[in-house]
Amino acid sequence: MHLGLFLLATGSHIAGWRYPGALDTFLDLEALKKIAATAERGRFDTIFIGDNLVGDPTAHPSYTLRYEPLTMLSALAQSTSHIGLGATSSTTYGDPFSVARVFASLDHISNGRAAWNVVTTAGTAAAENFGKIHPNHAERYEIAGEFVDVVFGLWDCWDDDAVVKDRESGLYIDPKKVRTVDHDGHYYKVRGPLNISRSPQGRPLILQAGGSGAGQALAARTADVVFSVVQDLDEAKAAYAGLKGRLAEFGRGKDDLIILPGVMPVVGKTTREAMDKLNTLQSFVATSNAMEMLSERLGQDMSKYDPDGPIADIQIADGYHSFVSVMLSKARREGMTLRELSNLAGAARGHWVLCGDPEFIADTLQQWFEQGAADGFNVMPPYFPGGLDDFVDLVVPILQERGLFRREYEGTTLRELFGLSRPAPGEQAHAIAR
Amino acid sequence: MHLGLFLLATGSHIAGWRYPGALDTFLDLEALKKIAATAERGRFDTIFIGDNLVGDPTAHPSYTLRYEPLTMLSALAQSTSHIGLGATSSTTYGDPFSVARVFASLDHISNGRAAWNVVTTAGTAAAENFGKIHPNHAERYEIAGEFVDVVFGLWDCWDDDAVVKDRESGLYIDPKKVRTVDHDGHYYKVRGPLNISRSPQGRPLILQAGGSGAGQALAARTADVVFSVVQDLDEAKAAYAGLKGRLAEFGRGKDDLIILPGVMPVVGKTTREAMDKLNTLQSFVATSNAMEMLSERLGQDMSKYDPDGPIADIQIADGYHSFVSVMLSKARREGMTLRELSNLAGAARGHWVLCGDPEFIADTLQQWFEQGAADGFNVMPPYFPGGLDDFVDLVVPILQERGLFRREYEGTTLRELFGLSRPAPGEQAHAIAR
Repeated sequence: MHLGLFLLATGSHIAGWRYPGALDTFLDLEALKKIAATAERGRFDTIFIGDNLVGDPTAHPSYTLRYEPLTMLSALAQSTSHIGLGATSSTTYGDPFSVARVFASLDHISNGRAAWNVVTTAGTAAAENFGKIHPNHAERYEIAGEFVDVVFGLWDCWDDDAVVKDRESGLYIDPKKVRTVDHDGHYYKVRGPLNISRSPQGRPLILQAGGSGAGQALAARTADVVFSVVQDLDEAKAAYAGLKGRLAEFGRGKDDLIILPGVMPVVGKTTREAMDKLNTLQSFVATSNAMEMLSERLGQDMSKYDPDGPIADIQIADGYHSFVSVMLSKARREGMTLRELSNLAGAARGHWVLCGDPEFIADTLQQWFEQGAADGFNVMPPYFPGGLDDFVDLVVPILQERGLFRREYEGTTLRELFGLSRPAPGEQAHAIAR
Repeated sequence: MHLGLFLLATGSHIAGWRYPGALDTFLDLEALKKIAATAERGRFDTIFIGDNLVGDPTAHPSYTLRYEPLTMLSALAQSTSHIGLGATSSTTYGDPFSVARVFASLDHISNGRAAWNVVTTAGTAAAENFGKIHPNHAERYEIAGEFVDVVFGLWDCWDDDAVVKDRESGLYIDPKKVRTVDHDGHYYKVRGPLNISRSPQGRPLILQAGGSGAGQALAARTADVVFSVVQDLDEAKAAYAGLKGRLAEFGRGKDDLIILPGVMPVVGKTTREAMDKLNTLQSFVATSNAMEMLSERLGQDMSKYDPDGPIADIQIADGYHSFVSVMLSKARREGMTLRELSNLAGAARGHWVLCGDPEFIADTLQQWFEQGAADGFNVMPPYFPGGLDDFVDLVVPILQERGLFRREYEGTTLRELFGLSRPAPGEQAHAIAR
């Protein structure tokens, strides 16, 4: 079983920062170092941070005010030694040369622990910070596919032994072991080579979370790890089988892609204690806040509907596909009111909430893992540091005792932790050709 | 007197990596940490790294293969505590939101030690990595001016006390203390606010090195520190007076801008030892290499001219103004052959080479400082670590003894080290209005 830590320092719960003793800012590097140390003590495979490109004072505190991800992870690379360091970077508002370069740099700096979460940016607000027209969902995935291809090519410009450094002759680089990319596509024209040598992992890992059809196709073709959004076991099994089933068409094996559903664990020593924690967290969520959050998630204003009535038959806005369909299907299945749905969305931003004592949490994770619903989990503590401490101190030891999770790190690169092979020079350039 | 360290890990000398015992790669973080520690032991104000956007296997080794600057400095921020951390980021191939964000992030991560070296990218090779048409010199400076204005605005979106974090009421941000930028200019359209709070320095420092007329105008209006390229005392005094004299038209005082000429010190315990070091370094420079370097510097192929003849009356290519005019004027003044000029360019890439025993080096720096040619120096060791060790161990103590240079750090932010005040919220947005 693999475990990722989804790190929003004020907690994945929208009001996690208000929990007694909780960290109330994402801009506290010393606190982040302690969190990273805890995750490493818990033998997590990776830390993962999302990103956004909008400073919206009304949004989740950790979305509004945060370090730029790569500088933050580069700093955390200095205080950790084994755990992976993954970050989101947008294919909608970035460029392939810069993205390839910065993740290769992080991979060098961390000695092989970098991972890039490939996203397309939903919502039009980011466009206003970049002076651009926001592309629609389909075009964003077209762009993303070409973007990833170019990045793969740039990561593959230098052979491992291209740097000769022969003091005697003065030859620094063997020119036969360097390649340009010479990409000339629909959206990008990039020559290369990259100005950093081949990174320790051969290429940094590719993470993805997009659950739409286009997102799944991109993941099946390019991703090493997928963070999925699911709410119950049957749905998770179907999603898992569906995505794994698509790998063959890209010449990939079932073990070449790791699927980690997101889960917000609310852990108590007893069921009662866990429920009390969740209720405390929920008590901080004003209905209006939760409704705003839900409106943001659904891409439309939900305050016009009766909060205590059934959920209207709404159109899904462009670019919000996966989160929305999962949430709406759960809500309709369970006959929720709009208020109940908004509370659910507020609690974990649409992710699966797992609340109980340590045995119950471990049992459930084991069940999902063994029944083919997950290769592990993307753990989203509702608040920090307590929400993570509980998981590491109470749940991880049970998983270790059952032989489900590592007691010691089995390698030094993130590829090794996930059991993924290192691409040979020249290999990925061919593998990605469409 | 202020001292900056220009860090190219294989040395500022083109063949520095071949010097016995010299570091032969820029991709060795442990070595960089040691260099940073030495600079901090020597009480340098700042480390500064340039940047380039082309992986050219025939260029200077530290240009071809290097960490991405911000991730590198973020890592070095963890191993240092006082020294400034400056990096180049291009206004030609970047965007203001990303640049504002990443330097604000570094400023937070380093507790107020970040500095942005504003450049326009010369040469067309970078354009091919970004699929863009390379703008001409004049347009690049138009773009740069607007780019800096937008970045200043983005750094000024959040008041220091905008983040309330009131657990009781649930109010995280005081909306009255956040501003958008709403820039709608010729090249950029950016809304804001930035998604990171006001940084420790109020705004990171602005460094600049452009010596053309347009570059000087931009520096006089926006820069905190200028790295200048000069070859002798009279020229340096004229350049110093010229730039300081332009500050008044932008409502700035003479102490608001620090001028640091670049110097490559070759230090020996005796003059003989210093000359031997320089000769050893020069012996590594094949004429063809040096001529290639000169051609690159001048933006045209110089191999067509007789190396032992006088220097032809060449046209200066667009975008190469300051380096070239300084080098050519020195070469003509001293009646150099083309070969001699190319050796000079190869030695220090056009910068001033100061070779001698520690007393001579200190005397010369003192003379420049006291005669109004410099506020300090941008020290460019020919190779590492020895070239820096020599300066720190042999020259710095003399400067300290003479009361010219600090013995202990006098503050915790880079602004404090340079004696520059912290901008108040809202202040810079007005100050930069054109």
